[in-house]
Amino acid sequence: MVFMTTTANVQTEPVSAPAAGVNWTPLQEAGRDHLWMHFSRMAPFQEKPMRVIDHAEGVYLYDDRGQKILDGLSGLFVVQAGHGREELANAAAEQAKKLAYFPAWGIANEPVIQLSERLASYAPGSLNRVFFTSGGGEAVESAWKVAKQYFKLTGKPMKHKVISRMSAYHGTTQGALAITGLPAMKQAFEPLTPGGFRAANTDFYRAPEHGDDLVDFGLWAANRIEEAILQEGPETVAAVVLEPVQNSGGCFTPPPGYFQRVREICDRYDVLLVSDEVICAFGRHGTMFACEKFGYEPDIITCAKGMSSGYGPIGAMIANERVMEPFLQGTNFFPHGYTFGGHPVSAAVSLANLDIFEREGLNQRVLDNEQAFGDTLRKLLDLPIVGDVRGDGYFWGIELVRDKGTKETFDAAARELLIKQFLPNALMDNGLYCRPDDRVNPVIQVAPPLISGQAEFDEMEQILRGTLQDAWALV
Amino acid sequence: MVFMTTTANVQTEPVSAPAAGVNWTPLQEAGRDHLWMHFSRMAPFQEKPMRVIDHAEGVYLYDDRGQKILDGLSGLFVVQAGHGREELANAAAEQAKKLAYFPAWGIANEPVIQLSERLASYAPGSLNRVFFTSGGGEAVESAWKVAKQYFKLTGKPMKHKVISRMSAYHGTTQGALAITGLPAMKQAFEPLTPGGFRAANTDFYRAPEHGDDLVDFGLWAANRIEEAILQEGPETVAAVVLEPVQNSGGCFTPPPGYFQRVREICDRYDVLLVSDEVICAFGRHGTMFACEKFGYEPDIITCAKGMSSGYGPIGAMIANERVMEPFLQGTNFFPHGYTFGGHPVSAAVSLANLDIFEREGLNQRVLDNEQAFGDTLRKLLDLPIVGDVRGDGYFWGIELVRDKGTKETFDAAARELLIKQFLPNALMDNGLYCRPDDRVNPVIQVAPPLISGQAEFDEMEQILRGTLQDAWALV
Repeated sequence: MVFMTTTANVQTEPVSAPAAGVNWTPLQEAGRDHLWMHFSRMAPFQEKPMRVIDHAEGVYLYDDRGQKILDGLSGLFVVQAGHGREELANAAAEQAKKLAYFPAWGIANEPVIQLSERLASYAPGSLNRVFFTSGGGEAVESAWKVAKQYFKLTGKPMKHKVISRMSAYHGTTQGALAITGLPAMKQAFEPLTPGGFRAANTDFYRAPEHGDDLVDFGLWAANRIEEAILQEGPETVAAVVLEPVQNSGGCFTPPPGYFQRVREICDRYDVLLVSDEVICAFGRHGTMFACEKFGYEPDIITCAKGMSSGYGPIGAMIANERVMEPFLQGTNFFPHGYTFGGHPVSAAVSLANLDIFEREGLNQRVLDNEQAFGDTLRKLLDLPIVGDVRGDGYFWGIELVRDKGTKETFDAAARELLIKQFLPNALMDNGLYCRPDDRVNPVIQVAPPLISGQAEFDEMEQILRGTLQDAWALV
Repeated sequence: MVFMTTTANVQTEPVSAPAAGVNWTPLQEAGRDHLWMHFSRMAPFQEKPMRVIDHAEGVYLYDDRGQKILDGLSGLFVVQAGHGREELANAAAEQAKKLAYFPAWGIANEPVIQLSERLASYAPGSLNRVFFTSGGGEAVESAWKVAKQYFKLTGKPMKHKVISRMSAYHGTTQGALAITGLPAMKQAFEPLTPGGFRAANTDFYRAPEHGDDLVDFGLWAANRIEEAILQEGPETVAAVVLEPVQNSGGCFTPPPGYFQRVREICDRYDVLLVSDEVICAFGRHGTMFACEKFGYEPDIITCAKGMSSGYGPIGAMIANERVMEPFLQGTNFFPHGYTFGGHPVSAAVSLANLDIFEREGLNQRVLDNEQAFGDTLRKLLDLPIVGDVRGDGYFWGIELVRDKGTKETFDAAARELLIKQFLPNALMDNGLYCRPDDRVNPVIQVAPPLISGQAEFDEMEQILRGTLQDAWALV
């Protein structure tokens, strides 16, 4: 292979060259030659210019092709308050002028303290202690690490394993990735951090048992977590890490009673329950933290994304007093941290963002509209390609099937055509940014900014309808 | 133990209570009850209010006690251009209004492309491909993951291990932490990601061999890396990860010829050389990337901190064309990414920051002043407690010893008193923020903003002199 050389210092030009007949702007050429995008095949961008978002306002994106596109994904489950909020931009500038950066290592600053207090006031029970990070994956790493150390400090040093759910996504750093339940995302990087084990998720549409009764299914799924704990040995299990509504696979909601049973199991085996709310917190389900919506109290919440509506990178691990207690003793400390964790500008922006939540009643807006949003999306069930519409709040998944009657899914070739090639571009060209995904079965996910209402629900439904009709004709 | 309960839902008040006779402001109380600080003992903050930085301007911090403090650490090796830069605050606000957030997943935006081009233009050789992260640890995770996958794609699938150096710090997520060479920072969290192995570092002051000849010592130290590769089996080693100047332990500079020998070794065994420049890039040593200063060309650079001067969280893994090539083929892709990696606001701020570098000649300023900075700090060698002063550019370490003649270090009790209790507060009270550290032997590190000059060097030396004299009287 030509690229297998032991001489690494060879000076080469970029291997790519523009395809004949395509006009590239200097920006597009620079993107082709220098920007390595996340989770993206890069070969297509060597031949055809990448799409560039130029600006955004409210619920709309505007790209370099002059197109106006409804942001049906809030960037990436992030932009809760919508784009172009001058007050968040101004909050950033004000804090940057006053104190742009200081670490959260032993010395504090005003916005980071205020935000810790604010988050604690929203979190349930005694979840009072806020450890800041730069984002969600770092929050999950922090939760696992604190769980490991907690049990060493409290006399159960063998407890270090984590149970999570099949196909769940919890981050890409090699601890968080070990918790993630997507084999294809892990295999090139194994071995990962030891100790990640999987149990069933709550995909009721494809329930292997109790497919006729949601409550029974939920109890069955929760008991799979108990089974995993027993299989590994409770004396070795530190935490169960679950999203309130599981993102990957397409918005698997928790059946009634599910989290109550999980909480019982965790208490029984002395296992910390971590609610990974990186997507679900900050109004995605109409409450500041989604555990409130679904009626359970975890020991640790991980969160990020919506905290600042994405106007500044920030995340947090919020622990209860039980977890904090041994770390308050003597010279004990948590030897862990991140340079940009609790960045003062991101913290100030988050405070201003949460002010918008309060002032504009964004949570109540989601609670008021979620039924209508679901009803609008469920209209798509009349299409032959739509097998299931599921979700909660402003977080919905539409599962695509070959056969609605049998729930037969698409084969690899059809998935490639649908999810990798046709849908992403066609939806954008038709004016909707959302998420076609086949990490499990093919789904389209929508999660618009929380300022959206019936007009946006209708626009999404119309664009999805037309595009899915075209897709059906292709496969 | 009272906190060992299997019932996690107990609602408790914070266990802390203010000490009698101390007046707490509401902000200090909120910090005590809610802010879990990084790498920090939390017990002291339950009894005595934490220090709060209120604002900063240029090279000075101003705290809530009315104190003016020289920032001798650039926040945390971050604030290269100094505090209070209105033009960076304004760049943030402008981009936030235009497009505050969009992910770098398959669709691009202007600042993220422009920054990728800019970084590639500064990076040596064919290091043209920029994968953005939110910070340094994520960049190191990305480098290890890409190295693992690169060798799987190019027919050497067993190559997955990493060699790094004893006592080096490379991050806290459980992949980066496996590369980190500080046992005390890892032990509570083990097992970490398998595959991290250690070789000797370049601590010439305590050279176990060739302590009389720097060049011989450097060759010896580089050969320890070859030894580690051979010991593990070259067919299993993917990368060598090294900082240009090793931070942890106190600024271990590379001897002449060291990196040239390391590059030869990496080429010989087909191992990727990763230059972890999270601290050293962006002018810390007077060049955009420190590998330029020290005359070697890595396959991958990891960087973060100074890219934005800390005005926005951002980091990057920059790969050469060799590493990129298999990822440009067909449907290959790097299944990896971060929500906030390449945040548009952080990218725009970084571009404005790099404009300041160019306009104000910050790199040349460091090159012009580094000798004088070193000379000023070396004056401290007349103190009995100062055993060694070492560093490069604006990045210096001062090693504290019990006996200069024998290089005897301090015992655990003296370290506790010096590094954990006396120095951090005394230095701040005397007007200098810098880094007393004893992850290896006791050192004080200084790394001021790059706008600093002789006046700041003198101020640092004077405050260090007085405080170290007081310290010597204590131990």
